[in-house]
Amino acid sequence: MTPHTTSPSPALAPSNATVDSAGEHALVERIAARARLSGPHVLVGIGDDAAVTRPERGAVEVTTTDSLVEHVHFRRDWTPLAAVGHKALAVNLSDLAAMGAVPRSTFLSLILPADLTVTDFDALVGGFLDLATASRVSLIGGNISRSPGPLIVDVTAVGSVRQRRVLRRVGARAGHELYVTGTLGAAAAGLAMFEAGRRRGNGDPAVDACVDRYERPDARWRVASVIARTGAAAAAIDLSDGLADAARRLAEAAGLGVIVEAGAVPVDPGARVWAEAAGGDALALAVEGGEDYELAFAVAPRQRRKFLAAARRGGHVPVTRVGRFVAEPGAWLERDDGRRNELAAGFVHF
Amino acid sequence: MTPHTTSPSPALAPSNATVDSAGEHALVERIAARARLSGPHVLVGIGDDAAVTRPERGAVEVTTTDSLVEHVHFRRDWTPLAAVGHKALAVNLSDLAAMGAVPRSTFLSLILPADLTVTDFDALVGGFLDLATASRVSLIGGNISRSPGPLIVDVTAVGSVRQRRVLRRVGARAGHELYVTGTLGAAAAGLAMFEAGRRRGNGDPAVDACVDRYERPDARWRVASVIARTGAAAAAIDLSDGLADAARRLAEAAGLGVIVEAGAVPVDPGARVWAEAAGGDALALAVEGGEDYELAFAVAPRQRRKFLAAARRGGHVPVTRVGRFVAEPGAWLERDDGRRNELAAGFVHF
Repeated sequence: MTPHTTSPSPALAPSNATVDSAGEHALVERIAARARLSGPHVLVGIGDDAAVTRPERGAVEVTTTDSLVEHVHFRRDWTPLAAVGHKALAVNLSDLAAMGAVPRSTFLSLILPADLTVTDFDALVGGFLDLATASRVSLIGGNISRSPGPLIVDVTAVGSVRQRRVLRRVGARAGHELYVTGTLGAAAAGLAMFEAGRRRGNGDPAVDACVDRYERPDARWRVASVIARTGAAAAAIDLSDGLADAARRLAEAAGLGVIVEAGAVPVDPGARVWAEAAGGDALALAVEGGEDYELAFAVAPRQRRKFLAAARRGGHVPVTRVGRFVAEPGAWLERDDGRRNELAAGFVHF
Repeated sequence: MTPHTTSPSPALAPSNATVDSAGEHALVERIAARARLSGPHVLVGIGDDAAVTRPERGAVEVTTTDSLVEHVHFRRDWTPLAAVGHKALAVNLSDLAAMGAVPRSTFLSLILPADLTVTDFDALVGGFLDLATASRVSLIGGNISRSPGPLIVDVTAVGSVRQRRVLRRVGARAGHELYVTGTLGAAAAGLAMFEAGRRRGNGDPAVDACVDRYERPDARWRVASVIARTGAAAAAIDLSDGLADAARRLAEAAGLGVIVEAGAVPVDPGARVWAEAAGGDALALAVEGGEDYELAFAVAPRQRRKFLAAARRGGHVPVTRVGRFVAEPGAWLERDDGRRNELAAGFVHF
């Protein structure tokens, strides 16, 4: 991401211009004017051929990359561009959270339709940068390309964690308990509202909150990093594809089975209100719905107190025990009366 | 990049299927079957929420990201997909080279039209992985998304170098000499051939080589890392946007001017043949044409011998002195008779 000296200066890029007419230099300058570009670990940021960072002493580097593609992951007529920018970073921070890492740096690759306005560009970048600033993450590189079609936001995020404290997917044992952060089903309810043609929840704040969660998920890296530091969790994964999918993966990684207890699942109150009004199944939204970006942990019973204490220290997000790992391979949803059904497979993103 | 356990198995993905019908799991498995996934620095590779690497002791991390967008950076009817995969990695390795870094890890983000065949996917990934293997770079993460339009290959590459040996753009001083690697203008001639509707050079191997250079540029990280280790270069940049652009940037970063000596520019022989046949200007191709992905260095005269010795040790690519930095700001092309023209601005990618 290099300002081109031959492009129009930022002063010549009014906000009603298109990004194509503004030029890459002006766009990069608009980012640089707002971004947290430096940090104690940043030796070279935006403006050279590549970024240079000093690794944290005694830590390992955790890196992830994920993209949001217009018409596939978002629609511009549903989701404000500021929310798209926020979410593009949040989904990457959630992957770092699932490893126990504290985010430090990010790279932003924008592929922009030529007719996108500079106002839209500012909104998109602003949503990204607001979350980056709140997360104390430095934007230190990226690139801007023209798109002949969809708007695409491709993000790479880098964090660090002590090697012994990395949380893997593998690590659960039979008898371990399954915990999740937060409440589940909100993002799926928010998406269902858009699909049903409703933008907001008729003034019910719990329902409106579902739209907010779908658009602006929180990444749980703060609580995850505190938990990781204590060593109280045996394994972790994020809930990008839903609880059923996450529970199944934690079990499969360890060659185990998992039982999710239906009555224990922390169904989001807004998802419950929405499901009731729409004739849907709130538990299904919570178990099978994706994009809540909460976390799931496998915890040994003797680590339970340490785990819960770390979660309390880690912030305001509650953790809830929702199930247990068993020796027999498989994945089940167990009702309060003891009946079991096979756990849904979760939806498959392409 | 996580194999989805609920998708069809790789055995069910024949090569004439589309990527959409094959599913993400099968595609990731096809990559994993061919990729160099590990290395001494890789603690967690593909298959968890994020990759984990151990930084090199005493070194800093250099990271870059760049993307190739169909219809903007390449056309599928011109360029084989194996070459697109190669180039997507090469342009990132070139950015690492310009910092003096040795590449170690890469992340591959693919945004694929649903109707792309698995055969095309294999070709694209194969081109990427062949270069990764040849460069001893581990593919340790990424993601696959559906595209509603163009094929997009977004790559992040990470390398390492000792902090004192990082090559920056800033660092030239008045009196320093400007060097470039290799020969220039080949990629621009290759592109011009496509634009003129000619796929190959009528059997002239020097002309065919221009197409190869446009499609499969080499990244000069080997020679650059040897030069960087000696401390003989004061500054460096890659020639993604051409010599004129690179020389101007090295000068501007240092608050200097630069003079490129026309008679010294190592015009590629194939570019010369093509320009002669097409009535074009070979020097303009070499000075203004982009995408050769050679490197430019600023070198103090008293470091010249050390620089040239390092370049010889670094491999088979020649280095050539093409100009000098001066105190007066500006950028000129100087003819053999001493006349000077302002240096072209170089083309501006969006």
